[in-house]
Amino acid sequence: MADDWWGRPVLAIIPRLFLDHFHHTSLIAEGPEGMAGFLVGFPSPALPGEAYIHFVGVSPDARKSGLARTMYERFFDVARAHGRHVVKAVTAPVNETSIAFHRRMGFEVGGPVPGYNGLGTSLVTFTRTI
Amino acid sequence: MADDWWGRPVLAIIPRLFLDHFHHTSLIAEGPEGMAGFLVGFPSPALPGEAYIHFVGVSPDARKSGLARTMYERFFDVARAHGRHVVKAVTAPVNETSIAFHRRMGFEVGGPVPGYNGLGTSLVTFTRTI
Repeated sequence: MADDWWGRPVLAIIPRLFLDHFHHTSLIAEGPEGMAGFLVGFPSPALPGEAYIHFVGVSPDARKSGLARTMYERFFDVARAHGRHVVKAVTAPVNETSIAFHRRMGFEVGGPVPGYNGLGTSLVTFTRTI
Repeated sequence: MADDWWGRPVLAIIPRLFLDHFHHTSLIAEGPEGMAGFLVGFPSPALPGEAYIHFVGVSPDARKSGLARTMYERFFDVARAHGRHVVKAVTAPVNETSIAFHRRMGFEVGGPVPGYNGLGTSLVTFTRTI
């Protein structure tokens, strides 16, 4: 739910491998002027009950429209269809918009976890039963 | 196959999600003094015939020992067990050691592909039938 990157190439934000290998469980929302939002997520191959949301973007024009909620609910359906009962995600502690959104969506907010991705990368964790 | 990072925390190199979600198809090689090498790879969830090697590391003490070859061959077995017939990987054009290794391992070398991961990120591609 970053605010300042929309309009940059998606590949500047997400390594291609996430698009190559997880597109079948990811979502694109189309609006009148092209892509209005997207969600990259997948059922965890190693953790049988879990699904993970890696990245979500909503175009500035589509903010406050409920699109992020709609994409999350669609992804919950995808995850359930793969037999998953928990969805997880993470964000930087500075991303208050994302933290508030996940709270509204019923996620339990944990952390920040120091060193989540190594030194200097504390992250807030989100966990929701579906 | 980077040369200068061994001994740093693994999380400084690979986001935790790769360890959380792909550990069941990844490999760790143990040596007399602890971890001698590791390979992070997975069968592509979206591309049914393919497997992808994301990162490989060999400790300085274990270089030139054939460990990388052994881990690749083990991973080919893992990939075959998941019904995969192609293994892919990428590296930076500057990584001549990796390019030479993949050639020796029978990979077809492609690119560099400009903008593989967005502007300024040309990558060399590796493809091998297994």
